[in-house]
Amino acid sequence: MSLQGAGVEPRCHCIGTESRRIGKLIARVKMFSPSPHCKDTEVIATLKDSGKEICLDPSAPWVKKVINNILSRNQR
Amino acid sequence: MSLQGAGVEPRCHCIGTESRRIGKLIARVKMFSPSPHCKDTEVIATLKDSGKEICLDPSAPWVKKVINNILSRNQR
Repeated sequence: MSLQGAGVEPRCHCIGTESRRIGKLIARVKMFSPSPHCKDTEVIATLKDSGKEICLDPSAPWVKKVINNILSRNQR
Repeated sequence: MSLQGAGVEPRCHCIGTESRRIGKLIARVKMFSPSPHCKDTEVIATLKDSGKEICLDPSAPWVKKVINNILSRNQR
C-alpha cells in the first residue's frame, strides 16, 4: 500500500492498496478519478495518529461508504 | 464557481460551486475531505473541452452520483 511521492508529478500516486477495513483510523480522504497521468481511480487516506498517507481500494464497498459519508456530511 | 490557485497552498480551493448539472461535460474529478487547511469537503471537476477546473457542490445528489459512478467503474 505504499504511496509514490505524492507531489504533483504526472503519474499514479498509488502502487498498492490497503485491504483491511480501517475506516476509524482515517482523518482525511482524497480521491482522484482517472486522468492522462494515471488510468486508475485513486483514493488516498491520511491516518489520524501518524498522519501517514495510504492508498485504499476504490472498488471496496467500505471505501465507497467512507466517501459517501464524507459527501453526506455536507447536507445544508 | 471560481477556483483559487489550485496549487498546494494550505487553504480551500473553492470559493463557490457550480449548481447546474454538468455531469456530461466532466472529464475528471478530484475530491478532498475537510482538512486542517480547509474545513469544507471540496469536489473539483475538470471539464472535457476547455480543461477548465470548476468546483461542484458535494451535497448535490448528482455530484454524489458522478463520484459513485467513478468508484464503481473499478469493479474487478
